Amino acid sequence: MPILPTLLRALDRLSLPTTVHAHCDLPCGVYDPAQARIEAESVKGCIEKFLASGDDVFKTRAVIIKEQRADMVKHHLWVLWTDYFKPEHLEAHPNLHDLFWHATKTAGAIKKGNDVAMADDLLNQIAEIDKIFWETKKA
Amino acid sequence: MPILPTLLRALDRLSLPTTVHAHCDLPCGVYDPAQARIEAESVKGCIEKFLASGDDVFKTRAVIIKEQRADMVKHHLWVLWTDYFKPEHLEAHPNLHDLFWHATKTAGAIKKGNDVAMADDLLNQIAEIDKIFWETKKA
Amino acid sequence: MPILPTLLRALDRLSLPTTVHAHCDLPCGVYDPAQARIEAESVKGCIEKFLASGDDVFKTRAVIIKEQRADMVKHHLWVLWTDYFKPEHLEAHPNLHDLFWHATKTAGAIKKGNDVAMADDLLNQIAEIDKIFWETKKA
Amino acid sequence: MPILPTLLRALDRLSLPTTVHAHCDLPCGVYDPAQARIEAESVKGCIEKFLASGDDVFKTRAVIIKEQRADMVKHHLWVLWTDYFKPEHLEAHPNLHDLFWHATKTAGAIKKGNDVAMADDLLNQIAEIDKIFWETKKA
Amino acid sequence: MPILPTLLRALDRLSLPTTVHAHCDLPCGVYDPAQARIEAESVKGCIEKFLASGDDVFKTRAVIIKEQRADMVKHHLWVLWTDYFKPEHLEAHPNLHDLFWHATKTAGAIKKGNDVAMADDLLNQIAEIDKIFWETKKA
Amino acid sequence: MPILPTLLRALDRLSLPTTVHAHCDLPCGVYDPAQARIEAESVKGCIEKFLASGDDVFKTRAVIIKEQRADMVKHHLWVLWTDYFKPEHLEAHPNLHDLFWHATKTAGAIKKGNDVAMADDLLNQIAEIDKIFWETKKA
Repeated sequence: MPILPTLLRALDRLSLPTTVHAHCDLPCGVYDPAQARIEAESVKGCIEKFLASGDDVFKTRAVIIKEQRADMVKHHLWVLWTDYFKPEHLEAHPNLHDLFWHATKTAGAIKKGNDVAMADDLLNQIAEIDKIFWETKKA
Repeated sequence: MPILPTLLRALDRLSLPTTVHAHCDLPCGVYDPAQARIEAESVKGCIEKFLASGDDVFKTRAVIIKEQRADMVKHHLWVLWTDYFKPEHLEAHPNLHDLFWHATKTAGAIKKGNDVAMADDLLNQIAEIDKIFWETKKA
Repeated sequence: MPILPTLLRALDRLSLPTTVHAHCDLPCGVYDPAQARIEAESVKGCIEKFLASGDDVFKTRAVIIKEQRADMVKHHLWVLWTDYFKPEHLEAHPNLHDLFWHATKTAGAIKKGNDVAMADDLLNQIAEIDKIFWETKKA
Repeated sequence: MPILPTLLRALDRLSLPTTVHAHCDLPCGVYDPAQARIEAESVKGCIEKFLASGDDVFKTRAVIIKEQRADMVKHHLWVLWTDYFKPEHLEAHPNLHDLFWHATKTAGAIKKGNDVAMADDLLNQIAEIDKIFWETKKA
Repeated sequence: MPILPTLLRALDRLSLPTTVHAHCDLPCGVYDPAQARIEAESVKGCIEKFLASGDDVFKTRAVIIKEQRADMVKHHLWVLWTDYFKPEHLEAHPNLHDLFWHATKTAGAIKKGNDVAMADDLLNQIAEIDKIFWETKKA
Repeated sequence: MPILPTLLRALDRLSLPTTVHAHCDLPCGVYDPAQARIEAESVKGCIEKFLASGDDVFKTRAVIIKEQRADMVKHHLWVLWTDYFKPEHLEAHPNLHDLFWHATKTAGAIKKGNDVAMADDLLNQIAEIDKIFWETKKA
């Protein structure tokens, strides 16, 4: 996880405690890229444990759970993309579509192997989305 | 969300970047009370929007979505209670069972009405769990 | 569903019966915009029945079911966008991202009211995606 | 998928675009055997890819996904059987119960192995249901 | 819940305690009509509470939960019908298909209103299925 | 499954037929530890079949299904713990929290191996919960 945005966010919260998690104009109205990130960390955990294990049943379970967690990453990212981001955000961040497309594609591709570097890549892409997300919140 | 643990956590992350979200000894191994908190914020958002609206269909939808989000709060809390916390944590925090029992009961009770104070109560209980969680991480 | 591509497809099937639903290179490998379309037709059905009814319980149920069906529309579209479409398709159809973004946004917005015209708009957007989808299949 | 009803349907749509998929008297009111068929094609795809692969993780994933897709086949068929078909349809098609019973049993049995012929058998049974379905629509 | 079949079942269990929940030859291998019955009792509870309440939000929630519980009744019955019952059972109980068709249709129809008598009817149909189920277990 | 509690329960039901499945004061209002027990029996069935099989695909499927069934055990137990049991029950049964904590932890741990003894242990813990449950019903 990127340190700088975390600190900035923490500082933001100190000064703007009532808007920590801004609400949009929809019924639920709460979005947070942390949901996608936590699931992506879980994917990474599954990969690391798969690689470290010599137990067949354990490895099968790691594959099953990674599959589910990667699906959750995709779901949380799709929700952010469609439900949170607005045309004015796209104008300010023209790479928004590509960013989400590649991040969700990575979350799909990661199911096929057990590659820690790909998990880090996924976490970096989510961190980039996270950075844009919090910038739009401050705007 | 409590400011102090957030800052402490942010600082922790600065010095220990590779262990941002500690992994337990299970396949998935990633836990974070933020999942329950985000859903509880969503519950609160649904209540506020329900109260502010005069549109019957909108109000019905707020009830539907609050129901689902409150179920997610319960689920995330149950997972933390059963899967993350260990006997040694219970020894150090003897109120752990009651804390989770009351928080999940509040998440159930909140479905019955549209009470912002109860949503804040739920968020406070999750913040208390969050505090204990991060203490056990540092131990 | 667009008439022309349906006819073309039906004709295709007459001559190329063994490739009715082409398989991609993923494990599951079967995609079909019909899944999103059927759910969108269901959304439209819920709206029409909601508008025609004077029974409160029935109307509540129509809202509940429309909510679920609209979520299914979004899910099926997201899967197509991320899992089926490839960079070369985006090159040939540069509006792909916007098309999916607007269609999924429409599927979200449709939950808020009971507007048959918006349901038709959603079906038209899915028809446009369907048209591109089958063009990429023929390529 | 049977070609003739598809063509007839496509022609119907040309002249009667607003009634593309007839609505039953329930809230949702949209049924289409295509849903079961698409999932059954996905099951077949999983089997073919399982058989063609020498990668253990890939094969495990094919088994996982086939399991889920076969469950979806069963679900869509059960919904058709219970929700769409009416006593008058059963009178006209006395083998209706057996047809659905065998098709859903096949969708269950297909999980146990990786038999392409069984997948074709399942697709044929769904095609038979599809044929009856569209006959009842024309009636 | 019908008292007589409950009594008969209790007596059955007294005399055949070791085969209370027989295992079939499938992977999971455990079936019990109690699953459908418990959900149907829940449906009945929702109806009774809906009728007794004057609180709009509560009534909306009763409708939502009844919808879900009725879906669970259908699901558990479909699983029994397709997965547990075998051709030899159908021979011995030729009304098996109709029994399940009507019971699942009742579980669907019960969503439309709030009729305690229909809930009792559903429970009686499940009790009839339960009786056949335990007879096949003893055979 | 333990025979004695089953017998005791059957006898209980003989003498108190009208309160077989008591309703609580919530919307749904129907609870029954049988739901958790049936899923735990399914877990045990999966383990037994896994151990008896030499077929890799079958064994993978047994692991997948055991994973899901164990999750269902946890879910049903969590619902009982949070939704059914009240402070007065905790006073009468001070070990209630520990009982549920250990039972749900066992349901989690059972995923890791294929140990019939652990499945029996889980069933015994559920039987203990079942005993307390029916005692609170009579109170």
